[in-house]
Amino acid sequence: MRDVLRLGLIGAGRIGQVHAATIAQRVTTATLVAVADVNRAAAQACADQHRVPRAMDDPYELLDDPGIEAVMICSSTDTHAPLIKAAARAGKHIFCEKPIALDLDATAHALRAVERAGVKLQIGFNRRFDANFVRARRAVESGEIGEPHILHLVSRDPAPPPIEYVKVSGGLFLDMSIHDFDMARYLIGSEVEEVHALGTVRVDLAIGEAGDVDTAVILLRFANGVFGTIDNSRRAAYGYDQRAEIFGSRGAVSVLNNYPNNTVLSTGHAVYRDLPLNFFMQRYVESYQREIEAFVRAIVEDTAVEVSGHDGWAALAIAIAAKRSWQEGRPVKVSEAVPVSTSHWMSEGQP
Amino acid sequence: MRDVLRLGLIGAGRIGQVHAATIAQRVTTATLVAVADVNRAAAQACADQHRVPRAMDDPYELLDDPGIEAVMICSSTDTHAPLIKAAARAGKHIFCEKPIALDLDATAHALRAVERAGVKLQIGFNRRFDANFVRARRAVESGEIGEPHILHLVSRDPAPPPIEYVKVSGGLFLDMSIHDFDMARYLIGSEVEEVHALGTVRVDLAIGEAGDVDTAVILLRFANGVFGTIDNSRRAAYGYDQRAEIFGSRGAVSVLNNYPNNTVLSTGHAVYRDLPLNFFMQRYVESYQREIEAFVRAIVEDTAVEVSGHDGWAALAIAIAAKRSWQEGRPVKVSEAVPVSTSHWMSEGQP
Amino acid sequence: MRDVLRLGLIGAGRIGQVHAATIAQRVTTATLVAVADVNRAAAQACADQHRVPRAMDDPYELLDDPGIEAVMICSSTDTHAPLIKAAARAGKHIFCEKPIALDLDATAHALRAVERAGVKLQIGFNRRFDANFVRARRAVESGEIGEPHILHLVSRDPAPPPIEYVKVSGGLFLDMSIHDFDMARYLIGSEVEEVHALGTVRVDLAIGEAGDVDTAVILLRFANGVFGTIDNSRRAAYGYDQRAEIFGSRGAVSVLNNYPNNTVLSTGHAVYRDLPLNFFMQRYVESYQREIEAFVRAIVEDTAVEVSGHDGWAALAIAIAAKRSWQEGRPVKVSEAVPVSTSHWMSEGQP
Amino acid sequence: MRDVLRLGLIGAGRIGQVHAATIAQRVTTATLVAVADVNRAAAQACADQHRVPRAMDDPYELLDDPGIEAVMICSSTDTHAPLIKAAARAGKHIFCEKPIALDLDATAHALRAVERAGVKLQIGFNRRFDANFVRARRAVESGEIGEPHILHLVSRDPAPPPIEYVKVSGGLFLDMSIHDFDMARYLIGSEVEEVHALGTVRVDLAIGEAGDVDTAVILLRFANGVFGTIDNSRRAAYGYDQRAEIFGSRGAVSVLNNYPNNTVLSTGHAVYRDLPLNFFMQRYVESYQREIEAFVRAIVEDTAVEVSGHDGWAALAIAIAAKRSWQEGRPVKVSEAVPVSTSHWMSEGQP
Repeated sequence: MRDVLRLGLIGAGRIGQVHAATIAQRVTTATLVAVADVNRAAAQACADQHRVPRAMDDPYELLDDPGIEAVMICSSTDTHAPLIKAAARAGKHIFCEKPIALDLDATAHALRAVERAGVKLQIGFNRRFDANFVRARRAVESGEIGEPHILHLVSRDPAPPPIEYVKVSGGLFLDMSIHDFDMARYLIGSEVEEVHALGTVRVDLAIGEAGDVDTAVILLRFANGVFGTIDNSRRAAYGYDQRAEIFGSRGAVSVLNNYPNNTVLSTGHAVYRDLPLNFFMQRYVESYQREIEAFVRAIVEDTAVEVSGHDGWAALAIAIAAKRSWQEGRPVKVSEAVPVSTSHWMSEGQP
Repeated sequence: MRDVLRLGLIGAGRIGQVHAATIAQRVTTATLVAVADVNRAAAQACADQHRVPRAMDDPYELLDDPGIEAVMICSSTDTHAPLIKAAARAGKHIFCEKPIALDLDATAHALRAVERAGVKLQIGFNRRFDANFVRARRAVESGEIGEPHILHLVSRDPAPPPIEYVKVSGGLFLDMSIHDFDMARYLIGSEVEEVHALGTVRVDLAIGEAGDVDTAVILLRFANGVFGTIDNSRRAAYGYDQRAEIFGSRGAVSVLNNYPNNTVLSTGHAVYRDLPLNFFMQRYVESYQREIEAFVRAIVEDTAVEVSGHDGWAALAIAIAAKRSWQEGRPVKVSEAVPVSTSHWMSEGQP
Repeated sequence: MRDVLRLGLIGAGRIGQVHAATIAQRVTTATLVAVADVNRAAAQACADQHRVPRAMDDPYELLDDPGIEAVMICSSTDTHAPLIKAAARAGKHIFCEKPIALDLDATAHALRAVERAGVKLQIGFNRRFDANFVRARRAVESGEIGEPHILHLVSRDPAPPPIEYVKVSGGLFLDMSIHDFDMARYLIGSEVEEVHALGTVRVDLAIGEAGDVDTAVILLRFANGVFGTIDNSRRAAYGYDQRAEIFGSRGAVSVLNNYPNNTVLSTGHAVYRDLPLNFFMQRYVESYQREIEAFVRAIVEDTAVEVSGHDGWAALAIAIAAKRSWQEGRPVKVSEAVPVSTSHWMSEGQP
Repeated sequence: MRDVLRLGLIGAGRIGQVHAATIAQRVTTATLVAVADVNRAAAQACADQHRVPRAMDDPYELLDDPGIEAVMICSSTDTHAPLIKAAARAGKHIFCEKPIALDLDATAHALRAVERAGVKLQIGFNRRFDANFVRARRAVESGEIGEPHILHLVSRDPAPPPIEYVKVSGGLFLDMSIHDFDMARYLIGSEVEEVHALGTVRVDLAIGEAGDVDTAVILLRFANGVFGTIDNSRRAAYGYDQRAEIFGSRGAVSVLNNYPNNTVLSTGHAVYRDLPLNFFMQRYVESYQREIEAFVRAIVEDTAVEVSGHDGWAALAIAIAAKRSWQEGRPVKVSEAVPVSTSHWMSEGQP
């Protein structure tokens, strides 16, 4: 029997810590052997908490460790592309949080480096591993609901991120809706060709002052003729709201929210239940486990990853088109947002 | 105590028969005293079934009857505007099925005739009287969900109408979505300013050959900043699908479907329930009762009707803009669809 | 075509008024031609409200009217048996509210009079006509859930009746649980052989002072081996609670409550909906219509009634056994509660 | 910071393996240092799988290890009492699966040994740590539903255990219903005084031949006046069915099932969802984690355990009374089932 996969973690911030805990407690096929973070203390704290032998501040030192077979890139977005290229050169398999970069050219460069190195790259679109969305995808794929006609996605956060984060995030379309664009492609199994995004500021004026929106509705047209709509908000009073519906020729499938319990109360005022799970770390805890297990499996069994670099590229292309649509107040073809250097990927599918 | 209101019914087709049955069996404040239909036999059959004393083929003969205080116009769409004008001249109060006409000028002429005559006119947007939508409106009006931000409407029929009907109906946007445009205005309490409609043929090629669509998704922008989306299909495999969701600053309200029973089964295959109520006559039976009761009450108590001629005009204006948006493949401002002669109604509100 | 059935109503109290309104507004196959109530003014008011031609204070005068084909007996329980006998002698078909009497001998006398006269007698166990319970029965009858093993009934009122009513009602087991005993027999399709009832006073001490209970749990053993439990309370804070579950070899069926709308709200506090329909007149409005339609149909088509006098007798037998079980603090066989004169009905089935 | 608690596992059968996996993957406050099983190979396999340093066949060898602070007793029921006594003598804290023994005297002996040794003993009633039941208990404790009046528990397995297990298990009441008796005491917060159990064979004749039942309904009377009912079956066609309802003076709380996803499908046949989680290892995975975390916490912080030996004793006393009730066909007071030597525990509460 092959031993467990030896992983290095780059970035010990919020999502890095989620992955570290997941690997330590839930993933039996891999183990963390090093943590790197530019904040040396954060790296050490994360290593201590999860019994990881080494902590360091330089990610390139981690990439030099020949005992590490694969890396989890969880650092800030601007470091993703350079780290992917360096990791690829070092012959490490790569799991990278979305987005790879905020522009398509930088993304393309990183993907080409991965391709040349022949390593595996999986993007952290964890919702693809959520039991609800997996079930919905199966309903489409199996023909249970017939040919898909209409998609509706709801994706609302319980609270906006810190304004400092908003400023460097690329904005709602590139930071938040990008998950929905990936989900749209995954559920429908077709590329998005045109997008029309309406955006506004309803939650926090500071978000508007930072040049971003906090509330958006997006209209999608897919290559296979499906129409889609997306509802986004940075703040739902009742918590994390993550739903989907696909309507098809033979039926419909609806993804509802997850709750902390299945207990219903009836009093003189109402019939009620507790609020949905409040944030992504509760709602998606099992999807984080499964995405890492899938990554490890793809490496160990040398099979294709389930979420490729092309998936990262394609979701970003839609996000950039959506942002432009909002900025210019008109529907935008995704092809308009794609530079010539990468436009062949629009029809070629997975790199 | 005032006696019951004496009503005349014009048009004994499908919806006319629904109203006749409703008045006969459920509305205690009104009684039908005459039925007119160009098909004399249909008028007679309807009269016989509901014990209505008189049947005739000429609606103008009905309008001449001094014993009739108000009329229900349920004949084909092309007759609505002339009959409204004639009824107004005859001093009858008027309940008219939607739409008043397929163009805004004809609609405006009819409304002006009503205004001059000083009679009441209520439009048959029955969903405003459905207990579910009433509850959702109350959630918005009362502030229970805070300021509204996003609206989503689902409106799918169990089966498309006969192709002959499709040809004269004005098409999906003017015939079917018009209910949703009214619902959008009602639930949000603001006018729609811009609409972007995608339409396609997925259900029946004959509908496309008739120049219409059977599947549509529509993006709405309201004057108060709310964004909305509408899902329409002429055929849902599981029956009549009529839902809504309004997301606001302090919460959300969701209208779900009605079912023939609240019985759930669990077997070795699934946990399941019977399909939703299969057509508008089951789902909306109580709303038909309440809209007629409201019409009678407005007459008897001399108060404003709950669904005015302006509501009919405004929903039609959105529908025409939606149809143009679909035809021209671009977002269309509702004001673009409004002729100069009626454009002052866009800001003036209820005529 | 046969004309509508001419009905007389005896008793214009709460349930009598429900039936009068139902016949006037919803039942197209029958018409009320006379109302009798010992309170002459009540009879007149009911007649006026529903346009019934005659009102009187003497029910026997009503029974003398040769134009009346069938009567609805809705007067106080102590008058049921004598009125059934008189109506039978007068050759009228009979619809009688439950219970026929508070003892089995009196019930038997009345049933024998009906049998001799050859008229039809239907008992007012309206829940058998509720769409939810009908669906559950169908799940048992069709084999959809296999052989039934376990039954659970929940039946809770929103508020206790007036204490004066409690005193003459026969108590919770004969007045309220009797509906559940009928439902138990109907859903399982087998006779109850043994009952063990626990009763107590939790809602209102005055009920205890009147010698009755307001809270009860009842264990049932059926002839076909099924076990059952019943939850009863005179006051559920959240309204009218009427549910059932049947567990069988191939699955289970659950009857849930009916609600005034299917609208769900989510705020910062909870995900909630409005309370269930608050009383039997809302929850069971359609079952009242259907039970009268079924009665009329049985007469017009000369077929067996759907709820027979034997069903009334059998539910009463269980109720008397339950009351004795509570009084004596032990399980009681239903056969113990049956006088010799009627004991042959326990095995003979429908009289 | 205190280091993690060093645990030894006795018994590497089904539940022992569940606990080993839970400790290895989910419990960060404890670690397994040894596994003992009379089947040496099973102990070794379990140790290998979860990286436990030592495996052995003699549990007494494990108890001799001074490095072990606490033990998990997961061996067959007949070994529980002797192992508890030995572990207590060895000064180890004890987590023991239910039941401690199949009779109350042996249970009492074991509890007295624990008391004398001053070690902690927690019983494996894991449902007390399930988020649904915890929420229901909170609804009672907080007064959210007022004073409790009626309890209903549903507890059905997806399939009966092997017939060899049935024979040594003590039967349905001592093996399966015992969980419900504990749940009843936990949810209502009062002792059960009387029980009336009906039992029968509907699932598998071999169970009847082994002298046991597979289907049961149990009536409970609590010291505080609450009435309760329990539904049990060894086979629900649709999977693991674990629900509860408590009705109180101000409302009701209902525990529903957990599902593998919150995805609903609608097709031409039905509105449906996948079956509930199919067995205790899925449904209760988090409760297993929390019960061990609670056990570790009670040791580390030297506080009372949340499920005491007295809780094990009390649930067993109800189970023995239920079994006698079924055998003798009459209600049985729990006090009848209690030997003189332990009867003082009925009023004294927790030992």
